[in-house]
Amino acid sequence: MKMMSQDELKKIVGEKAVDWIKDGMTVGLGTGSTVKYMVEALAKRIQSEHLNITGVVTSDATAKQARALNIPLKSVDDVDMIDLTIDGADEISSDFQGIKGGGAALLFEKIVASNSRKNLWIVDQSKMSEKLGKFPLPVEVIPYGSKKLFSKFSKKGYAPTFRHDDTGQLKYTDSNNLIIDLHLKEITHPHDLAAYLAEQVGVVEHGLFLDLVNTVIVGYPDGPKVLEAR
Amino acid sequence: MKMMSQDELKKIVGEKAVDWIKDGMTVGLGTGSTVKYMVEALAKRIQSEHLNITGVVTSDATAKQARALNIPLKSVDDVDMIDLTIDGADEISSDFQGIKGGGAALLFEKIVASNSRKNLWIVDQSKMSEKLGKFPLPVEVIPYGSKKLFSKFSKKGYAPTFRHDDTGQLKYTDSNNLIIDLHLKEITHPHDLAAYLAEQVGVVEHGLFLDLVNTVIVGYPDGPKVLEAR
Repeated sequence: MKMMSQDELKKIVGEKAVDWIKDGMTVGLGTGSTVKYMVEALAKRIQSEHLNITGVVTSDATAKQARALNIPLKSVDDVDMIDLTIDGADEISSDFQGIKGGGAALLFEKIVASNSRKNLWIVDQSKMSEKLGKFPLPVEVIPYGSKKLFSKFSKKGYAPTFRHDDTGQLKYTDSNNLIIDLHLKEITHPHDLAAYLAEQVGVVEHGLFLDLVNTVIVGYPDGPKVLEAR
Repeated sequence: MKMMSQDELKKIVGEKAVDWIKDGMTVGLGTGSTVKYMVEALAKRIQSEHLNITGVVTSDATAKQARALNIPLKSVDDVDMIDLTIDGADEISSDFQGIKGGGAALLFEKIVASNSRKNLWIVDQSKMSEKLGKFPLPVEVIPYGSKKLFSKFSKKGYAPTFRHDDTGQLKYTDSNNLIIDLHLKEITHPHDLAAYLAEQVGVVEHGLFLDLVNTVIVGYPDGPKVLEAR
């Protein structure tokens, strides 16, 4: 058996995920490198099987890709309910809680996920961990007052950093907000942390996706493994 | 004693409020019709008494007024701490909890208020009530998914309406979000409601200002009355 790269693992789970999509479905399309393969595979299935699928996007980036591939799109506000959302994740714990937002799209991802009947996450094996916290927790914040929030997180010991883009500038989200990444190492009580962050003035959303996922497809070198969360 | 209009009551408390401002202070400048009088009176005091005051604004509208009156301004992120914030309120209960956001500036108002050592609210008598809820509770929401949140609030019996501007268009806030007003009539457990709203995906901030105000100046026809909250 040859060694597979992380990218190959992502491709395999991305292509596997479209098996969950049935004709007539409204499908939430996540964001990120793994999701890109899924969107490509979905476009192929729509064309070859003449499927009637409506996509609901979670970022400007995915909207651009889906439009280029002629996947029909609607806003989350213009569909009754999303049947299934397929998205990546940055870290998934053994009890199926997740951290998302490495791609800075956590806000729209969470809006779409929370309006979905089912959520399917697709990841390579490196994203699975016993407890959450190894991946920095992204928090989307209003720019005005963000330095004050940063100081508050510092004092709490959350080791915050402002997210920057490739050119070294502060990273702005699709909603023109900033991202503060919290380097927590281990999150012992994710629900408490989620409630604390939600109540902070200036926090728009955070990357803890709790009690949301139904199914996870994990890419391992010997093939994708399907885990049923709940 | 002649009858005073609501506008005259606002002017009296607005002018009274600047008595709380001392030389050297960093002062949060709220938003709204009552605050306008305060900002005018503050500019006069700065000029006549040569006061060294730094203003921190809560809206584009107040920034414009303050700049025109030559009040030195800084961002909330560029000051150490705000000594005192003077703002209006739409409703204040007998236990000094408040509803704000009638002017759609609740987000920046709350960011400034929560970074202030003291908060002073200035209102005319019509804003005082036994329990909160007569004034519709504004909730600032991300446009994407806002119709879904609206449906959710409807099902909860919150009687939501989208805020429109004078021309009948959807009202966008300074952060390009929408406002949903909840017509609750009576809010029996404001802390529970605040926690519920904060945890809703897509809610940026809500107009419940709890445990924030220190002093309230209320305009009555026989003169302003000062109430110490805590």
